[in-house]
Amino acid sequence: MNSTALEIAKKLNGRVEGDGQVQLNKLSKIEEARKGSISFLANPKYISFLENTRASAILISNEFKAINNSDITFIRVKDPYVAFSKLLTDFSQDKEKRNYGIHPTASIHPNTNIHEDVYVGPNVTIGESAIIKKGVVINSNSAIGSNVVIGQNTKIFSGVIILDKTQIGKCCIIQAGAIIGSEGFGFNKNEDGKYSKTPQIGNVVIKDNVEIGANTTIDRATLGSTIIGHGVKLDNLIQIAHNVEIGSDTVIAAQTGIAGSSKIGARCKIGGQVGIIGHLTIGDDVQIQGQTGVISDVANKDIIQGTPAIDFRSFYKSYSIFKNLPNFESRIRELEKKIKK
Amino acid sequence: MNSTALEIAKKLNGRVEGDGQVQLNKLSKIEEARKGSISFLANPKYISFLENTRASAILISNEFKAINNSDITFIRVKDPYVAFSKLLTDFSQDKEKRNYGIHPTASIHPNTNIHEDVYVGPNVTIGESAIIKKGVVINSNSAIGSNVVIGQNTKIFSGVIILDKTQIGKCCIIQAGAIIGSEGFGFNKNEDGKYSKTPQIGNVVIKDNVEIGANTTIDRATLGSTIIGHGVKLDNLIQIAHNVEIGSDTVIAAQTGIAGSSKIGARCKIGGQVGIIGHLTIGDDVQIQGQTGVISDVANKDIIQGTPAIDFRSFYKSYSIFKNLPNFESRIRELEKKIKK
Amino acid sequence: MNSTALEIAKKLNGRVEGDGQVQLNKLSKIEEARKGSISFLANPKYISFLENTRASAILISNEFKAINNSDITFIRVKDPYVAFSKLLTDFSQDKEKRNYGIHPTASIHPNTNIHEDVYVGPNVTIGESAIIKKGVVINSNSAIGSNVVIGQNTKIFSGVIILDKTQIGKCCIIQAGAIIGSEGFGFNKNEDGKYSKTPQIGNVVIKDNVEIGANTTIDRATLGSTIIGHGVKLDNLIQIAHNVEIGSDTVIAAQTGIAGSSKIGARCKIGGQVGIIGHLTIGDDVQIQGQTGVISDVANKDIIQGTPAIDFRSFYKSYSIFKNLPNFESRIRELEKKIKK
Repeated sequence: MNSTALEIAKKLNGRVEGDGQVQLNKLSKIEEARKGSISFLANPKYISFLENTRASAILISNEFKAINNSDITFIRVKDPYVAFSKLLTDFSQDKEKRNYGIHPTASIHPNTNIHEDVYVGPNVTIGESAIIKKGVVINSNSAIGSNVVIGQNTKIFSGVIILDKTQIGKCCIIQAGAIIGSEGFGFNKNEDGKYSKTPQIGNVVIKDNVEIGANTTIDRATLGSTIIGHGVKLDNLIQIAHNVEIGSDTVIAAQTGIAGSSKIGARCKIGGQVGIIGHLTIGDDVQIQGQTGVISDVANKDIIQGTPAIDFRSFYKSYSIFKNLPNFESRIRELEKKIKK
Repeated sequence: MNSTALEIAKKLNGRVEGDGQVQLNKLSKIEEARKGSISFLANPKYISFLENTRASAILISNEFKAINNSDITFIRVKDPYVAFSKLLTDFSQDKEKRNYGIHPTASIHPNTNIHEDVYVGPNVTIGESAIIKKGVVINSNSAIGSNVVIGQNTKIFSGVIILDKTQIGKCCIIQAGAIIGSEGFGFNKNEDGKYSKTPQIGNVVIKDNVEIGANTTIDRATLGSTIIGHGVKLDNLIQIAHNVEIGSDTVIAAQTGIAGSSKIGARCKIGGQVGIIGHLTIGDDVQIQGQTGVISDVANKDIIQGTPAIDFRSFYKSYSIFKNLPNFESRIRELEKKIKK
Repeated sequence: MNSTALEIAKKLNGRVEGDGQVQLNKLSKIEEARKGSISFLANPKYISFLENTRASAILISNEFKAINNSDITFIRVKDPYVAFSKLLTDFSQDKEKRNYGIHPTASIHPNTNIHEDVYVGPNVTIGESAIIKKGVVINSNSAIGSNVVIGQNTKIFSGVIILDKTQIGKCCIIQAGAIIGSEGFGFNKNEDGKYSKTPQIGNVVIKDNVEIGANTTIDRATLGSTIIGHGVKLDNLIQIAHNVEIGSDTVIAAQTGIAGSSKIGARCKIGGQVGIIGHLTIGDDVQIQGQTGVISDVANKDIIQGTPAIDFRSFYKSYSIFKNLPNFESRIRELEKKIKK
């Protein structure tokens, strides 16, 4: 990266305020910026950093109030974070060099179908009848089971375990330590109080453009498939149980758990540490606030909070009174006294 | 699998309604069934699928109301899910072929005691003085520490880490990515505010018929043993701290955490995302609802919910009023007005 | 270990009550102690074990009331758990033998800088330009990325994944299965409702004397560094998102999650299953009770609880009334009746 502010502004459909010829060679956080850095300011919480930053240029939004600072060139754009993210993408493609080939320590079953244009890192294992398509990257110490299919340009980080019969689409990213296709929690209680295992003979199907976070676990279906829809983004340490289905472009934050057979709609936003019990239907465009416990079906576009979950506005109204309950107590006691008189 | 409805009914102690000679060759979910499929209907939520299913036979309960559908053969049983699970077990034993032998890329300490009838997959490591008994399966990329004992017919999936001195019983199943025997969270605060580590020199003991979920972590005891009782079933991403003991046939859902030295009784049912603080005693046959926070001892057979946990009926009564607190507020205000008059 | 009670008392600055010449050769939990065992009693919950223990000596606090038991030698110390922990440390150093050298199955990039006095276990992979300093131990099946630096005497257990550019200080302990440097959850929503990935090109910096728990995940910064301060202790299954910073000597219990860019102060004590949303500032010496949900900044020394978090005393006052809400309901109804009359 080596551009003037004007060149960057042009690339981002932005407008320069200040010296358009300033040379920019580095993307930086505003608080760590130096001469030559371009930064961004999106969250108003960080406005105070503007005073002392050493950035040469800063992306700000069109609506941001005028600033007089002759040392900084501002580039006004519609969404500074999106614009900066675009620069990051261009910049990181400059930098990243992809590996090619199959490392000699990889242990690959003789009967597999692996495209010649892939990377398979050290100590990777690949099982019988696996199909690995063009452009796939599998980093060190990952284990791919038998009959697994991995679609074009999917990237698998280190230490990932993908169990038998899993199907993964194109352009997915699986972060380190994720487990895909483990046997779910299916047991029948016998008359003697002991449990016997229900075989888990289904699989996991992951569509295209999905990202799975580090150490997240996705159980195979008892029968049929656990399905992660197109463009779904799962954060770290999430639990997806057997036969769950997640609709397209739904995003789920870290440490959330979804129990068996629940169906989640498309374009939902689910916060961190949410729990959803089994056999529910969650609609499209639903928002679930962090740490919520969902125990019944949810309609399209609902926004919910609390355990058990209710409408988030109702939750906040009730919670604001909850915080004042000791005051309530005294008001009731006062009333009782007065009545008695 | 290739049987008539009558043959299946006989195997399951069931009763046929409809064509007993229909040929069945496939186990399917009711919504994915085709000609030749046998399905089941256990959860009333899924009754609507009965109208459009293409299943040739369906397991239903003895109590289910009569249905007229000349295209489907019904098999009445006591518990359709248990019956279906039995068919799955038989069917999956048809299918699954076990691997044998020790993969040449496994790295095994010369001083170990490994039965000849085992499977050790690629890139597995086994440490000094480990004892691996008859029928054990250890899949790819797992690491077995020194002085570990693994009992007969236990199956260890890929990427499992079993640390030094762990003892695992017979017929256990350890799902991918589980960590057994990590050093727990034991620190002493020094006078300067820094922490020094308490050595963790105990181990983990897992009894027979235990199942441990994917990416679950079980810490070794500081001294003595962390103990997982006979027949315990742990779901994914569970945290079991040092010196915890879990009684026989207790089942725990995903993402629950149990802090140091707590003792859990037998036959408990613990929901997902439950937190239990350290040094508690939880009785036998206790039920803990999802996301509950337990901060005091629990008596046998209690059913608890909330953070901090209370009796679950009390919790629901209070919560139903919590949802109406704004209404309460107005009622009290109204009373205050009237009294003032 | 083979000492008299007097010798142990001298080492611990303690005072003997009873037979100072009794021979001690074993550290035991009080309930598992035998002849020759030294145990400790710190938590009053366990006093009842005193009656039946077979320990030869027991560490108790100076304040503990006098006990008459001619079979046991008591050693009075300031803090019995700290004293016992000191004995454990000495004892475990007796026992533990360190491995040395590089296992032939390790897969190491030719261009690395690895000190000769290290241990690299079987099936470990180490990437280009990694620097591994004196005394480092890397156990089996771990994967170290390129440009990683690991400081002196740091110990890495099995199955740990350390991704590119991570920097780890001296004397750290990384428990099995931890993931350090995964790509965080950074996406921009496009106008068509789909998400595109924000590149995550920063790294993780871990200072000295840090302990990271099993299967914990720490995401690399989007830009700059995710920073884990000196002496921080993280338990198992914790999620640390991109650009989080954690101050020195803060301790965090299992299954807690901290969202992107939040800054945590020094010497905080954070319970298990806590959730902290992004872009917050948590002060120094803050205590956060288990399962709390933090959605706004927290001042130094605050103690908070609840979701959303409030002062913990307020939370307990309100919660004690919450438990009595049905009773409230009847009191209000009673008042309404009386007023009506």
